[in-house]
Amino acid sequence: MRDAYLIGAGQSDFGAFPDESYRSLFATAFENAADSVPAGIDREAIDEAYIGMVSIGGRQIGLPAPAVVEHAGLHGVPCTRLENACAASGYSIRQAIQAVRSGMADVVVAGGTEVMNDVSSETLPYWLGVSGEMEWERMAGTTFAGVYAQIASAHMAEYGTEREQLSHVAVKSHKHGAMNPHAQLGFECSLDDAENAQVVAHPLTLYHCCPTTDGAAVSLIASEDVAAEYTDDPIRITGAGAASDGVGLFQRDSYTNLPAASTAADRAYEMAGVGPADIDFAEVHDCFSIAEIMAYEDLGFCDRGEGGTLAESGETALDGRLPVNTSGGLKSKGHPIGATGASQAVEVFKQLTHQAGDRQVPDPQRGLAHNVGGSGGAVTVHIFERAEVGR
Amino acid sequence: MRDAYLIGAGQSDFGAFPDESYRSLFATAFENAADSVPAGIDREAIDEAYIGMVSIGGRQIGLPAPAVVEHAGLHGVPCTRLENACAASGYSIRQAIQAVRSGMADVVVAGGTEVMNDVSSETLPYWLGVSGEMEWERMAGTTFAGVYAQIASAHMAEYGTEREQLSHVAVKSHKHGAMNPHAQLGFECSLDDAENAQVVAHPLTLYHCCPTTDGAAVSLIASEDVAAEYTDDPIRITGAGAASDGVGLFQRDSYTNLPAASTAADRAYEMAGVGPADIDFAEVHDCFSIAEIMAYEDLGFCDRGEGGTLAESGETALDGRLPVNTSGGLKSKGHPIGATGASQAVEVFKQLTHQAGDRQVPDPQRGLAHNVGGSGGAVTVHIFERAEVGR
Repeated sequence: MRDAYLIGAGQSDFGAFPDESYRSLFATAFENAADSVPAGIDREAIDEAYIGMVSIGGRQIGLPAPAVVEHAGLHGVPCTRLENACAASGYSIRQAIQAVRSGMADVVVAGGTEVMNDVSSETLPYWLGVSGEMEWERMAGTTFAGVYAQIASAHMAEYGTEREQLSHVAVKSHKHGAMNPHAQLGFECSLDDAENAQVVAHPLTLYHCCPTTDGAAVSLIASEDVAAEYTDDPIRITGAGAASDGVGLFQRDSYTNLPAASTAADRAYEMAGVGPADIDFAEVHDCFSIAEIMAYEDLGFCDRGEGGTLAESGETALDGRLPVNTSGGLKSKGHPIGATGASQAVEVFKQLTHQAGDRQVPDPQRGLAHNVGGSGGAVTVHIFERAEVGR
Repeated sequence: MRDAYLIGAGQSDFGAFPDESYRSLFATAFENAADSVPAGIDREAIDEAYIGMVSIGGRQIGLPAPAVVEHAGLHGVPCTRLENACAASGYSIRQAIQAVRSGMADVVVAGGTEVMNDVSSETLPYWLGVSGEMEWERMAGTTFAGVYAQIASAHMAEYGTEREQLSHVAVKSHKHGAMNPHAQLGFECSLDDAENAQVVAHPLTLYHCCPTTDGAAVSLIASEDVAAEYTDDPIRITGAGAASDGVGLFQRDSYTNLPAASTAADRAYEMAGVGPADIDFAEVHDCFSIAEIMAYEDLGFCDRGEGGTLAESGETALDGRLPVNTSGGLKSKGHPIGATGASQAVEVFKQLTHQAGDRQVPDPQRGLAHNVGGSGGAVTVHIFERAEVGR
């Protein structure tokens, strides 16, 4: 099978934009992605499009994909909305890889878009909650912060993880995000800020929780046959792993790991023929700070129970051994849920093409993106490598 | 690229089932699909699953796919919800084809599920309407019946199509559906019944409109490499076409055709290397009787404006030149919107494997399935052929 290549990627600003729509944000992201392709790209070259969107607030719940692509000037392109909660556009990337490998498409849009800030704070928990387990978690009053708070409490009980370690994740994310012009919360925070902020769901404070975000992101994924037409420096997607799990936390044997994440990672590593030690940097799904600590463990970056220590060590900071979430992550960059997976690929693209500015990792060769839906019901892991076409 | 093969397909009964859920119906459909595979199939063989679901009524709006596959005994399988309104599971089939052609999966579930009858008649128009154009059609009060009534009126004005011709479509669908044990409205109707029933949206009467349906359907799509392990009589999927269009009818140049359907058909015919004259039978998206008449024209079964005449001629009846909707179609079999595309493949499978019982087309070699989202915003067309593996 021919390989799939990332030839460009771009995003809108992430934030609260009352004058924008899910369509206009996507159009901006598409423009930025197209502009990032070294040789440029015409809209006519796009063969297929995958749109991650949960449709928070109920906007165009049915059939948003054609509405989105048309607004981006891609009228008529075969397109599909993909939804796996917060992993929606991780799956856009997965489907785009399959589309180009299948021989049915040469250049594919793998994107996502979401508008969340125009939904009232009274109804937003409903629209977010519907990506959790509906019958036994949401109907019982549990929110996502509540679910991840239970995970954090269990991790603390089982491994002695400390809240200050969670706060180190927040401090690092904000430090990175302050260098990302697209970030929603592009400012630094101190350990004290994170520790002493308002409690959202014990033990998680405000700084342990990602914000509510409007935004869109687009990756452009091309077949081996045409990638060289667009860039001399294509990025090969060598690993694509995915797995699912029971949607409800209560369905799991353990609260301290996400089995679907481990399985997806194993599949991605196996496909790429690499292991965790071969990864130079990663974008992981830190919807809550405890999620990043679990990600370290699920992805094999450290042993089980060592995630808190790894966070505290500084090794996952920009100047560390394995920089994680140089974009600022969901925490600082923001989390427009349908667009997050695609936006992780934007950071991977910038890093591997040396366009990450002040937050550039020195000469990275291989990056990983980890996107989680719900509290682990659906996960994608992708591995991207600098590569010459046809190597 | 290796080809994709349909090795099995099954569905639940279609109807109103207050004791079933979107999960239990899917589990039944999966069981029936697995049972249809000549050599049988273990759950462990399933590599990936695509679930078409619009989530009418708002049940598990986010992340339904893992909940569905887990309930069917497919815990952990990579799965994604696809949504393109009423074409959701036509796109499940498209993605499954890409998945097996990509080399990333050998056996894939292409399914769909929907529960619609437990939504109150006061809120159902909202949940259906959201698959129409939200801002300019739904908010202005237009329903889907209203949209297709406008199409019917325009077709009558432009081509002289008569309502009695629409009624012939309904009579044929019910005649076929009466022979389908899974059909929701499995009874015959007369031309008088159709003509004189209550008007839903002028000129469409009740018999020109499909019912509100609970149901699920599953196709099992396998790679060339493994299809022979499961059946001596695999069905090759030779054509897969898709296209999108503006979601709103007001965005089109004409009300009397669906450009995305013509484009999708052209792409499918080109990929398969065949034309409309080579099709032995077809399942088309007759959400309203006028939609079947447009489908005849969009698929090239007759010239523009001749669809009404073709419907009246009897040539698309079971004993005609080109039987259409031998399953009963959306009109009689029912239309659980996320599952309809996959259920079309169920009928194609039954016909091509000579398991269609009283409604069997004599020795068909090639069938076509045409699935429309909204009022033409997203369309898939697939062509299936009897084939020896590796021919």
